[in-house]
Amino acid sequence: MKIGIIGVGLIGGSFAMDLRKVLPGAEFFGLDKNPEHLKMAADMGIIDTEGGDPEIADADIIFLCIPVDAAVRELPVLLDKIGDEALVIDAGSTKKQICAAVADHPNRRNFMACHPIAGTEFSGPKAAMQGLYEGKTNIICEVEKTAFKLQEKALDLFARIGMRIRYMNPEAHDKHIAYVSHLSHISSFMLGKTVIEKEKNERDIFDMAGSGFESTVRLAKSSPAMWTPIFEQNKENVLETLREYIHNLEEFRKKLAEEDMAGIYKEMEDTNKIKEILKGIPLNKKES
Amino acid sequence: MKIGIIGVGLIGGSFAMDLRKVLPGAEFFGLDKNPEHLKMAADMGIIDTEGGDPEIADADIIFLCIPVDAAVRELPVLLDKIGDEALVIDAGSTKKQICAAVADHPNRRNFMACHPIAGTEFSGPKAAMQGLYEGKTNIICEVEKTAFKLQEKALDLFARIGMRIRYMNPEAHDKHIAYVSHLSHISSFMLGKTVIEKEKNERDIFDMAGSGFESTVRLAKSSPAMWTPIFEQNKENVLETLREYIHNLEEFRKKLAEEDMAGIYKEMEDTNKIKEILKGIPLNKKES
Repeated sequence: MKIGIIGVGLIGGSFAMDLRKVLPGAEFFGLDKNPEHLKMAADMGIIDTEGGDPEIADADIIFLCIPVDAAVRELPVLLDKIGDEALVIDAGSTKKQICAAVADHPNRRNFMACHPIAGTEFSGPKAAMQGLYEGKTNIICEVEKTAFKLQEKALDLFARIGMRIRYMNPEAHDKHIAYVSHLSHISSFMLGKTVIEKEKNERDIFDMAGSGFESTVRLAKSSPAMWTPIFEQNKENVLETLREYIHNLEEFRKKLAEEDMAGIYKEMEDTNKIKEILKGIPLNKKES
Repeated sequence: MKIGIIGVGLIGGSFAMDLRKVLPGAEFFGLDKNPEHLKMAADMGIIDTEGGDPEIADADIIFLCIPVDAAVRELPVLLDKIGDEALVIDAGSTKKQICAAVADHPNRRNFMACHPIAGTEFSGPKAAMQGLYEGKTNIICEVEKTAFKLQEKALDLFARIGMRIRYMNPEAHDKHIAYVSHLSHISSFMLGKTVIEKEKNERDIFDMAGSGFESTVRLAKSSPAMWTPIFEQNKENVLETLREYIHNLEEFRKKLAEEDMAGIYKEMEDTNKIKEILKGIPLNKKES
């Protein structure tokens, strides 16, 4: 089996590492716009060789793991180049624009729109790890538009690397993921910004920071190149989550200003039920 | 040596567990307004016995590890009851009001105002753990007001359980801790609230949440009984951090609404330097 990895970073590299274990004998080729990442991925044994149009035409499966703006641009071109029986799987954090970009493509049946919920704040081949996908959710959109035989092939592979599958339509995916992922990133980035601005002349202050601060600003280490196009593609949903989040912060601020401490207590008590909700979320191995 | 633990939860319980290792033969008594916690602490071997006024009068060291509103109330009374050579150490997340509450107390020299940066989102005796304080920062305020011999005694104990010491005045402590701790808690609680409100009728949506969401809302599991009085005591500083945080979120929202993607990219890129800052923060063992 010949497998192509376009974008040999955390997501693409980890797919290669996990699939190598369950597909002995498979050959992996890679493409990346960053030649250093491509060399690193080869040196690390993530890919066997570099790839190009001949390898793409000959591939059985291709994983497209690049920023979502590039994915929208590249996917239609990629579908033009592949063989009749090939399967292309993307891994983007937004699904509406990419599904729209190939809605009328003659090879739409060769494509499966996926969002593996497995990212971390790290990126590049060095961030890739074996077992990243074990126990993680993979959201598949418009599954009915993928050829039945290719659906089977993809689902078998996902099962073998330990992923659980959820099906959604692209609109619902983008709306809900804004709440449980995109908003977290903005809250984290702006928290980091607020503290850096305040404390820029007092570096020692970070000695006061504990694991709670670390946890809430962890996502502010994330890659701007990856996240800028996500926010752009999911603009309307993200604006809506931000509006609600800012409103809740304003209400909290008002309660505190008015010394409504019973109200503050209740806000926190009501939100404590997040404990139950969080129980179901699998952590990454590097973090747990 | 007789050691009293008032409040046998995460902070008090963990002090007892760590001190037991470095002070063989020491006896630990406990007090707690929650009789179940007291029994649990005894059953777990955190304390040897329950304590009362006679034990307090006879104690060498007492750790006061209770919510900051109770601490401000109880500390002056406690200082009335102790022996001449006794050392009382608090562990509150705010320092201005507690220092003010005993500024003119005749036994002020028996008290050391501390804030060990070691809390987690968990509370109660079951959250206590050995090694919690290893590598953690302990901020000591108004050290010059503690009797010199008692300073020495306390610093020796903190060194033996692996803490690093920083000295600050109470006002500076409360101002800066608002940025690197209190704001993180509010951002986390309000993030949890925003998502719960939106998704209350769609429980399956949390299947979409990954480790990034978990990380940013982790602190929303924290105890309202502990955090309400912290916010109350540090109201002015917390309001200021919230004002700045909300402003930054508004600016981000405006950039996104105007599709200023270069501006969004730059915001994130500038904040990425948090990576360097976070390198110095020790994680808790249960988390690392």
